[in-house]
Amino acid sequence: MAELKGNAIVGQSGGPTVVINESLVGIVQEAKKHSGIVKVYGARYGVKGILEDDLVDLSREGVRTLKQVARTPGAALGSVRKKPTEEECRKMFSVFKAHDVRYFFYIGGNDSAESASTINDLAQGQDYELRIFHVPKTIDNDLQVTDHCPGYGSAARFVAMALMGDDADNRSIPGIKVDVIMGRSAGFLTAAASLGRQSEDDGPHLVYVPERPFSVERFLGDVTKVYQRLGRCVAAVSEGIETAEGEPVYSSGEKDVFGNVQLSGSGALGDFLAGHVKKHFADVVGVENMRVRGDTFGYLQRSFPGIASETDAREARLAGEAAVKFAVGGDGGGSVAFRRLGDGDSYGVEPFVTGLSSVARKTKCMPDEFINSEGNDITEAFRCYALPLTGKLPVAGRLKMKKVRRAVKG
Amino acid sequence: MAELKGNAIVGQSGGPTVVINESLVGIVQEAKKHSGIVKVYGARYGVKGILEDDLVDLSREGVRTLKQVARTPGAALGSVRKKPTEEECRKMFSVFKAHDVRYFFYIGGNDSAESASTINDLAQGQDYELRIFHVPKTIDNDLQVTDHCPGYGSAARFVAMALMGDDADNRSIPGIKVDVIMGRSAGFLTAAASLGRQSEDDGPHLVYVPERPFSVERFLGDVTKVYQRLGRCVAAVSEGIETAEGEPVYSSGEKDVFGNVQLSGSGALGDFLAGHVKKHFADVVGVENMRVRGDTFGYLQRSFPGIASETDAREARLAGEAAVKFAVGGDGGGSVAFRRLGDGDSYGVEPFVTGLSSVARKTKCMPDEFINSEGNDITEAFRCYALPLTGKLPVAGRLKMKKVRRAVKG
Repeated sequence: MAELKGNAIVGQSGGPTVVINESLVGIVQEAKKHSGIVKVYGARYGVKGILEDDLVDLSREGVRTLKQVARTPGAALGSVRKKPTEEECRKMFSVFKAHDVRYFFYIGGNDSAESASTINDLAQGQDYELRIFHVPKTIDNDLQVTDHCPGYGSAARFVAMALMGDDADNRSIPGIKVDVIMGRSAGFLTAAASLGRQSEDDGPHLVYVPERPFSVERFLGDVTKVYQRLGRCVAAVSEGIETAEGEPVYSSGEKDVFGNVQLSGSGALGDFLAGHVKKHFADVVGVENMRVRGDTFGYLQRSFPGIASETDAREARLAGEAAVKFAVGGDGGGSVAFRRLGDGDSYGVEPFVTGLSSVARKTKCMPDEFINSEGNDITEAFRCYALPLTGKLPVAGRLKMKKVRRAVKG
Repeated sequence: MAELKGNAIVGQSGGPTVVINESLVGIVQEAKKHSGIVKVYGARYGVKGILEDDLVDLSREGVRTLKQVARTPGAALGSVRKKPTEEECRKMFSVFKAHDVRYFFYIGGNDSAESASTINDLAQGQDYELRIFHVPKTIDNDLQVTDHCPGYGSAARFVAMALMGDDADNRSIPGIKVDVIMGRSAGFLTAAASLGRQSEDDGPHLVYVPERPFSVERFLGDVTKVYQRLGRCVAAVSEGIETAEGEPVYSSGEKDVFGNVQLSGSGALGDFLAGHVKKHFADVVGVENMRVRGDTFGYLQRSFPGIASETDAREARLAGEAAVKFAVGGDGGGSVAFRRLGDGDSYGVEPFVTGLSSVARKTKCMPDEFINSEGNDITEAFRCYALPLTGKLPVAGRLKMKKVRRAVKG
């Protein structure tokens, strides 16, 4: 087969991660090794940059810059939340032609896979060979086909570490703590809250994922039970939890100061649940002024620098490199996926190509075996799945606490 | 002077930090070197453990355990928010006597210094020699006399890193972001948000500390100006900001679902400010659906493991060790403080003793030279003060972004 020669465009799309630039740098560095790719252009703010012909020349970036950028959170080229219309796809196509672009690498989630798929379908009907690859990234880990997604391991590591610290804090000054974690439809990130647990009484003691219907009453009962056993309770709750009727848990008419219904993604769900716990302890359990607090981790989960999972960073790089190899190797296009090889010490991944349409739009949820039967915790099967992805977590020290014999009577 | 021989009690008090256990371990390890201290007991949950004669024998903890505990966030002995009454102080005194305790080390903030001071005053009137030392800890850095407090450097490091990541995120998908940071009366921790800035357009672009009155109108004007210059804006806001009348910014009648006035310390202030920005952009600036979000960092600031400032950890250990040295050296009691020696590469500290009453109850605020004249940012003087305390921050990489010449007309 004759080599397809031309330029490449890379774009980044959707919510960024701390390793999304590893994929970008993987593409740029790998492309240099192949004569088929002449130059690598970067599109500013994803498809928006292509539509506006707003491109930068990534071939002119130095090795040192690229190395630093790879370790920097956020999308270095700028990102966008935009699905191009068919007309826009045609416009993008004319930009590709004008710049002699034969390779398009789009780093993003399932929406980005859909955009790539639309452009790909259009390309089929034209007499212009274009190889389009979707390079997966998402902290939600909700893409189909692949074993897991670049971006997830690092976000999971942040959440696991955050809960380790928060549990140590809660152990110091006992009370009830509710932590709200990202993930609208899939519970993978919320489930990661449990990865740092080392002993039986470590929190989070309760974990609620969006794959199971959420009932405030059941939640209050669960919290009370944990409190009665341990004198404290830490609960991890997904921002995407819904009632059995499929309604958001926090909406039910509550409005913000401007009359808008509050969405998850603000601090409102955490405050709402914390408020319910406080009231429940006062009215039902009979404990006035229970120490209750809700924290919503927000964007820190996808952007906190300096603690990326090494495994995740390596795999994000690999996904970018693999996309280039598949493309110059003659593959017509698709989405890069990972097959898991071995586990534990022998853990590794092998990249392969899956069709764009197998990833586009669809969402993967947690399999049943990752969630306990009560729907309020995760299972050992999930830990086995997720721990190789986060890298080694800090180890918490605990005093042996040998009691001193009492010397004072009464 | 004859050696004072007896046992020691250590307690931890107030909100924990990620290095509070370094001070605990510093006390335990240093005490082993001095024949005057026979055993070191730990009080469970601060003064509560003393009142209830609930003590553990820290002399029996192994070196490996202590090493791990030192690096673990949260108060390993348990903490408490409680000021003992005079009667309780008398009760504590009887526990000290019953256990032949001659040394009391209390790790905490200005409330803990007050408790120590009350016990100390009582001890003066009794024919029983007791040496009481307050070992400072606080993420707020709001203690008098000392140059800075153990616990602050690590919390400041977390906040600086969080804002670096959040700014990279905001740069990727431009919008308005409001981050609410701990610190009720002193702005030191909020000011740390700015420590990771590397270039002129790095966020946070606005910083609001409680030392200056906050006006929502002025805030909206500031945000608009930054947005018009950069197309985005990241603002760091202290949870303790107040109006010119000394009222909390978020209260003004807004209630939670149970009719309670919402306090700072929930997600409410961030959501309140984000709501105002959204409305202002729609009504005044003329931008509908501006991307606005508020995040409240919550307890992560004082508990996130694995990224403690090395300097802070070392100094927290030093504060504990110094307290023991001062006590066995014959000092009657006081609070351990730091004097700064040199700066930059030659930065170091020297511990000294200050009277308990000079620290008790009082709060130190940011000096004027740390805040800019507009009251919406911090100064270079603050950076010089704080950067030696946080340790080296991650370096953000940025693409050079050489533009590709447009190939498409229109």
